[in-house]
Amino acid sequence: MPNVRLTVEYDGTNFFGWQVQPGHRTIEESLRKALEMVLREPIPVIYASGRTDSGVHARGQVVNFHVSQMPDLGRLALSISFLFRGELSVVDACFVDDDFHARHSAKRKQYSYLIFNRMTPPTLEKGRVWFVTAKLDFARMQSAAAALIGNHDFTSFRGAGCAAKSPEREIFESEFVRDGNLLCYRVVGSGFLRHMVRTIVGTLVGIGRGVQHPDSITELLAARDRKLAGPNAPAHGLYLDWVGY
Amino acid sequence: MPNVRLTVEYDGTNFFGWQVQPGHRTIEESLRKALEMVLREPIPVIYASGRTDSGVHARGQVVNFHVSQMPDLGRLALSISFLFRGELSVVDACFVDDDFHARHSAKRKQYSYLIFNRMTPPTLEKGRVWFVTAKLDFARMQSAAAALIGNHDFTSFRGAGCAAKSPEREIFESEFVRDGNLLCYRVVGSGFLRHMVRTIVGTLVGIGRGVQHPDSITELLAARDRKLAGPNAPAHGLYLDWVGY
Repeated sequence: MPNVRLTVEYDGTNFFGWQVQPGHRTIEESLRKALEMVLREPIPVIYASGRTDSGVHARGQVVNFHVSQMPDLGRLALSISFLFRGELSVVDACFVDDDFHARHSAKRKQYSYLIFNRMTPPTLEKGRVWFVTAKLDFARMQSAAAALIGNHDFTSFRGAGCAAKSPEREIFESEFVRDGNLLCYRVVGSGFLRHMVRTIVGTLVGIGRGVQHPDSITELLAARDRKLAGPNAPAHGLYLDWVGY
Repeated sequence: MPNVRLTVEYDGTNFFGWQVQPGHRTIEESLRKALEMVLREPIPVIYASGRTDSGVHARGQVVNFHVSQMPDLGRLALSISFLFRGELSVVDACFVDDDFHARHSAKRKQYSYLIFNRMTPPTLEKGRVWFVTAKLDFARMQSAAAALIGNHDFTSFRGAGCAAKSPEREIFESEFVRDGNLLCYRVVGSGFLRHMVRTIVGTLVGIGRGVQHPDSITELLAARDRKLAGPNAPAHGLYLDWVGY
């Protein structure tokens, strides 16, 4: 059976996250139903590179599924995007080897987190950024972000209910880019635990505000205690940018 | 009487443009009423650097008005932004000389126009960009954009009902910047006629699609005939970035 890989972009605002949950509108279930409608055959399961939480956005979520016949992929991409009316769009579609699995085959991922830092609320970026009025020390945040690079046990940044077997992950890139009032945090890793990026950002903003010292990142990692890290940054500032295979 | 200058950012989506129009919700009237509410005195008139059309956004619209007493400007900025609940925010507030006039004193302005160029619709940029599926020749658009720089008679790019006395304007910068699927057109000029930027963008996209040749810009300017230029690009991709004084 042909194996189809889609790269999808979505606005997570009105979805209850990726994973199917009875009684809630999720991306997984909406996409599966849309595929069945367009392909006119049952698609029992679609695999994603990972779940995104309720409200989290994606620019390059990757999914795959099996079909009985070879569909016209250009038409498939347009039809699916049309059904979602601007909430989800297919940005790439291709056939892949039979053993490709969106989650198991993933080697690295990039997330971005947008922080909007000024006194008055965002208008054009509303619902796309975390609005923070506190004065932030950019140099402190940048140095703390860099301390996350490497292979670490991320238990201190792991959300309750995380199903991952190991808390160890490798971080390849971790830095802020500033553009006026907008601070963009970019992190590339071998994978991420539940809520990990949002806990990292919440902690880094605490460091920027002066609540914790930049060196505390190293202590936090060593402590392996979620209670010592900062609160989770809100979901609507987080973007799954791309998945590398 | 103290003269107050505000720099405001707004999402133009749900406003019927800047200028007061009976029976419609406009930015001018909403802002004037909000100022009266916060300052607790009549503000008969506010001056803006220029009108923006229905649906056009602003990152740095400049307005001024006179008040009888010196208000706390930090508190004023917060209160006004709070009343608009994310549709308009005050990004700067200061006292200016008595002869400062947001429109008459303006020396130059920058507008940006965002074009989203791919086959499937935008999700995260929905309502903020012009969605164009046609294949666009970037080099042709860039060379046509450059031909607009200088002092020209812009009659061919002037909308019906334009109240300006002279159709001559000087363009200092005119270029595209590409970032993935997003084409950003930036133009800096001494001032702009009604619909001028949107007509320029509509024409440049026509040139990118191969409908017209890049050299046609020079002919269009010389012809002084609006019928020869392209259609107006939609309002929701246009941003007033800043006004220079």
